[in-house]
Order: sequence, then structure tokens, then C-alpha cells
Amino acid sequence: MIVLLTDFGLKDPFVAVMKGVIATISPSAAILDLTHDISPQDVSEASFILKGSYLYFPKGTIFVVVVDPGVGTKRKIIYVETENYRFLSPDNGILTSLFPEEKPVKIIEVKNSKYFLKPVSFTFHGRDIFAPAAAYLNQGVAPEEMGPSLAPESLADSPLPFPHQDPQGNWHGEIVYIDRFGNLTTNLNGCCVDSGENAEIIFKNEVLKGLRQAYANSDSPSGPFAILNSFHSIEIAVNQGSAQKILHAKKGEEVILRCPTSFS
Amino acid sequence: MIVLLTDFGLKDPFVAVMKGVIATISPSAAILDLTHDISPQDVSEASFILKGSYLYFPKGTIFVVVVDPGVGTKRKIIYVETENYRFLSPDNGILTSLFPEEKPVKIIEVKNSKYFLKPVSFTFHGRDIFAPAAAYLNQGVAPEEMGPSLAPESLADSPLPFPHQDPQGNWHGEIVYIDRFGNLTTNLNGCCVDSGENAEIIFKNEVLKGLRQAYANSDSPSGPFAILNSFHSIEIAVNQGSAQKILHAKKGEEVILRCPTSFS
Amino acid sequence: MIVLLTDFGLKDPFVAVMKGVIATISPSAAILDLTHDISPQDVSEASFILKGSYLYFPKGTIFVVVVDPGVGTKRKIIYVETENYRFLSPDNGILTSLFPEEKPVKIIEVKNSKYFLKPVSFTFHGRDIFAPAAAYLNQGVAPEEMGPSLAPESLADSPLPFPHQDPQGNWHGEIVYIDRFGNLTTNLNGCCVDSGENAEIIFKNEVLKGLRQAYANSDSPSGPFAILNSFHSIEIAVNQGSAQKILHAKKGEEVILRCPTSFS
Repeated sequence: MIVLLTDFGLKDPFVAVMKGVIATISPSAAILDLTHDISPQDVSEASFILKGSYLYFPKGTIFVVVVDPGVGTKRKIIYVETENYRFLSPDNGILTSLFPEEKPVKIIEVKNSKYFLKPVSFTFHGRDIFAPAAAYLNQGVAPEEMGPSLAPESLADSPLPFPHQDPQGNWHGEIVYIDRFGNLTTNLNGCCVDSGENAEIIFKNEVLKGLRQAYANSDSPSGPFAILNSFHSIEIAVNQGSAQKILHAKKGEEVILRCPTSFS
Repeated sequence: MIVLLTDFGLKDPFVAVMKGVIATISPSAAILDLTHDISPQDVSEASFILKGSYLYFPKGTIFVVVVDPGVGTKRKIIYVETENYRFLSPDNGILTSLFPEEKPVKIIEVKNSKYFLKPVSFTFHGRDIFAPAAAYLNQGVAPEEMGPSLAPESLADSPLPFPHQDPQGNWHGEIVYIDRFGNLTTNLNGCCVDSGENAEIIFKNEVLKGLRQAYANSDSPSGPFAILNSFHSIEIAVNQGSAQKILHAKKGEEVILRCPTSFS
Repeated sequence: MIVLLTDFGLKDPFVAVMKGVIATISPSAAILDLTHDISPQDVSEASFILKGSYLYFPKGTIFVVVVDPGVGTKRKIIYVETENYRFLSPDNGILTSLFPEEKPVKIIEVKNSKYFLKPVSFTFHGRDIFAPAAAYLNQGVAPEEMGPSLAPESLADSPLPFPHQDPQGNWHGEIVYIDRFGNLTTNLNGCCVDSGENAEIIFKNEVLKGLRQAYANSDSPSGPFAILNSFHSIEIAVNQGSAQKILHAKKGEEVILRCPTSFS
């Protein structure tokens, strides 16, 4: 199975052309779309989506990530293999984001043009490099055929922001993703709170007390609340409404978590 | 074949994750998207789309409907089997909308956590319950394994509005769906009009005479007209334009059908 | 393999219903979406997308094009077979656009209702004619079964605009497609410029010198530049920005190419 993650959108034929190239080389490949609506060239958003999703796909899946502000420059294209999964991506930190939890057992620089379309354009490596390389890997070509090994420490750093703790013990994070419903996902994971009952989540002038379990369990149906979401992250939401609109929220804005242990 | 109908959109990875879960459990499952752009939590719109579409899919198809304002509350999840089709949905009336035409032969409450992902989140039953349950059904697990039988009369009522007839014999319906082109689909089905030639469709200040057969057959190309559409419903449209914009129309607004028999 | 190209969008169930019809008749058919976001009824945009994409799909692919302002009128539906590909489309010039490079070896008028759904609606030939015809072709039905042969010269003209050369030797083209990133694709193909270094591309008040190779190789990162894009066309782009917004560009606006040979 080959899973595609890009910022190409579905209006243009770019994703379809990648699938056509894959199907031409590897007719039996099953292809799924993770999403193609990553904000243009937003490697941090792509990291977040991939990290929160890949574990739900079958073992052996090849993830093809084409969010690539550096297309046509000298940035490397890398293949990373872990115990259960395989990944193709530009070397821009997206895969590095997975390493804390997903140990790479093989890292290859993809550069053998034998497995590319010819001529390779400067503008569409998704079609000319990523799609054919993924298809040949799916056909059983050994990754080592595609280029030399790389050391993990040579790869670009993860673009994902990490929360930090202040001297009072509060965690400072930020909004890392806003979904279709306007729910605000943060990079705070609530691991410091046992039950969540005593946590306080602070965003702009709002102080949200406790972590709710379900969207619909609301005493104050129209106001914002905090919830541990399906990405296992603390999220700010509004029941049957958009927290993004109501709180005028933007990606990157700070969210603070006050844990019970930091209460005095 | 498994067909998905949700309000998740395609920007977020939710639909893809459901497909990943299905493919992990049932690698041979063919998965199709009915649509994921149901207006958020709009069970009436989901009813309308499902009702107008399901007959065009192969017999045996499993439809998985996740439009679920009550996720995480005590609302039931149900499996309904008819002579030709199978359905999974929250018990919120969406499937009840089909019963006038599609007789249920089996109704099961899906509650056996053996067929769920663990732990089951409070926020994403599409991933944790619906997807694995559909995949196990596709693998041949008997629905009875998933929970007890339910009586049809115990299910939630259909959210679909029905037209009513006034003392003068006119039918009062409403706009139930607005498509991409801005065409206004009503819940009036034109069954009272033989040829449609003498019907009058009244919307706001417009009185549209007769039912046109094709979009392009227009004497007055820029004005609104009524047509019997591919959902077999009376629709208000504008050739090469948007009736929604031109008539400032909204879902739920009244549309009246004056039939020849009610003319005096 | 069956590839669908429509202006139906993905909000409505129309595309899904076509796939359901195909899967019912031809369960083994692999179906891919080229795009469904062609601007409503824009046959010129559909021509451009098809022309720039079809060569990347496997030989034998059946392309089903439903961008059809004339649905329900007397316009013909045609099947065109070339050495490597097969196409179904309304006879509105979309396929004619391919003929300069893709020689038709068989042209059939699709009119045998044996291969249609019944009754055929006046509003949704995608479901009632195109989908079943494609599925039966995929099942091995001979195209000749579907209707009589047509002569190439009887087909509608291509809606694609062609550039023309003025007495000074400059090429006058126009913007034919604007992609998700706001990049402006023209119908100028740069074949008159060897290296591209000396070309000048003129759009409104901008004179862009030379053709850049990659989006990221920018000396003036925020300004517009010209590039030979993955459609092999001259494109006006802005690195990490939208040329459409910055230049207030619209489809159809003129772009001029001054080639070195026309410099004096």
C-alpha cells in the first residue's frame, strides 16, 4: 500500500498524475490519500498530520510525502525504513519528527535516476521522482539500489515546535493544527495531568478548567472548552461551533497548560 | 465494498485514518467515498444524500455513515441490513429515512468492543468503532456477534422534513439540499404532476411555470426555472448560473407546488 | 483502469454515484480521479488538464470526461480510441484538443441504449450513459456495439486558444489555467527559446526576463518570475506566494513572449 501526503490540493491534476505514474509502474499498488490539503509548503503541519496518522495504516505501508518548498534545489530526497513502515520525503525535517517514537533502521538518499521519469523536471519531483521511486519500491526494488546510506544525525531538524516548561511549572505550547470544524489542536499532550480534572488551559483571555471527555457533554453549550482529542493532544473546541472563529485563533498562537502540581 | 459518508471533509486526516484501519483489518476491502462534505453534523443532509444515492451501488455494499453530533454520548450505534444493502450509523434517524423504501431485515446494536480499536476514544468513533466494525463485517463476522437485536420502532425518527398539502391542494415543501452549482433541490417529488407542464413552483416572489426537462433547453437563459432532477426531486435552477446566489436561497426555505388539480 | 474528469466537485454525491454504477457493472475496474474541480462547464479548462495529464496514465486507460454544458440537448456523446488510450466525452471539442498529438484510430457515436441505465435522465448523463458505457467497455464490449463511426472532421472544434505571432515575431498567448498555488499557466510553450535565458515574458506592466528553472532559485524572492512548468508551458509564478493575487490575474488575460530572435 502506498499512502500520499502532499500540499497539492485536489483541484489540480498533480496528485492524479502521481497516481497514474505509480499505476503504470506498479499496477497492483493500492493507493490511499492521507490528505492533499496541507497548507502550501507547511512542513510543520505535514509533520503533525503524518505523526498523528501513520500508526493506523497497515504494516509495510509506503508513505510518500511531497511537501517540498525546496523542489528543484539541492535538498536531498530520502527514504527511511523503520521496523513497520517505509517513508519517502524531501529531507526537510518531516520524517525527523517521527524519530522519537519510530526508530529508523535504514536511511537512503534517493538519487539513482534509473528509477526516475526522464527528463526530471525542476518543478514536479512528485511526478518525476517520488511516484516512480515509490512504485519501484512497491515492486520490490531494494532501497539500496536507489542511493547511498545516510546517518540519522545528517538529516534536517524537525520543524515541529516543542512545548517548554516555565519556572512555575506551567507548560507553554501553541496551536499546531486547526481542523475543518475549527477545533484548535495544540502541541500540549496532557501527560502531566492524571485525570485532567484539575488542569487549566489558558488561551488569550480564556481560562478553560478541566479536560472534557466528549464534544457533546457540554454544560455551557456555546462556550469554548478543552478536550483530549483523537490525536492525543489537548484541543480547544466549541460544541457545534468553530473555536477558530469564536476565539479568532491562528496557528502558532500560544496556549498555556497549568497543571495541578503548579497550583499554589 | 465499503462506502463512506461523513462530515469530516478531506482537509483533515480523519477519513484517511478510517481507511487505514479498514485496510489493516480487511486488506481486500474496496473503499469508495460517497461524500465527506456533509455540512458539519447535519443529519438531515446526510439522510437526503444517502437516500438519493445508495441504489446505484453494488448489492451487498456496506455503507458507513459517520455524521454524529452525539459522538461520545449514550446514543447507540446501529447496524441495519436490508435485502440488498448493509448500513452502519449512529442511531440518529439517518437510516430511518430509508425505511419507507428499504425494508430492514436485521437491526443490531453495535456494542461488542471485541470488534473495536482499543482504547475507544470519546471523540473519534469513526476510527475506533465504525471503521473496524465495517472491516470485520466485510471479513464475514456475523452482525449478531456485535450486539443484540433492536426493534425498528425503537430507532430515532428520520430528520428529513416531509411536504404537506394545504386545504387548497397545494404542496408545501422546502429546500433540502443545495449542490455545487447552486441548484436548489426540494423535497417535492412532482408525483402529483403527470407531465409537469401545468405545475407551478413558487419560491419567494418567483412563480416558475412547468417543469423543464434539461438544463440547456432554456428560452430565457438567465432566469430561474424548475426541473425534475437526478434525485427525482423538483429542483430550482438557473442555466449556467447559481440559483442559490440569484435567489438568495437557503436550505430550509419554503417552496410551494401548485398542481393542475388544485387550479380553479 | 478508468479515469474520471468532471466539473462535479466532490461535495455532491454525483462522482460517487458514477463510481457505484461502474462498480456494479464492472467490479474489477480500478477507478482514479483526474480532477472533479474543473470550473463549471469550462470545456477549455478540461481540455488543458486532460492534454497535460493523460500521457502519465497506463496504456489502455479509459478516460471519462463529463464537462457537459449541453447535457440533455442533441449534442453527441463520442468514444475515441487512439493507439494507446480510450476516451468518452461529449462532442464539445475537449477530445479534438488532443488530436494534434494523439491520432484517433476509431471514433464512435455512443448511442446504443442497451449500454445505458434506464430511464436515461435529461440531467445526469454521467450516471446514466458515461459510467455504464465506460464499465461495459472495460468489460470488453466492442465500441462498435455502441453506435456508428464518425469522421474526425465532423467533431466539434477544440476550445483551446492558440497563441499567434505578430509581425515583429512576438508570440501572443494567454493564461489558460491557474493552479491551487496561484501559478499562472499560459499557452506559450517556449519552443522558440533555446535556453530561455534571453526570453522576455510580458504580462500587464511586468517584463519578466528569462525563464527560471526552479521555484526556489530566486534572487528576488517576493517578485514574479517566469518558469517552464511541469505542463511544459511558460508559467508566471511567485516564490512562496500567489502570482494570481499579486498580479490580479484572470484566466484569458494576454501574455506576450518576446523571443531573442525578435530583439533588435
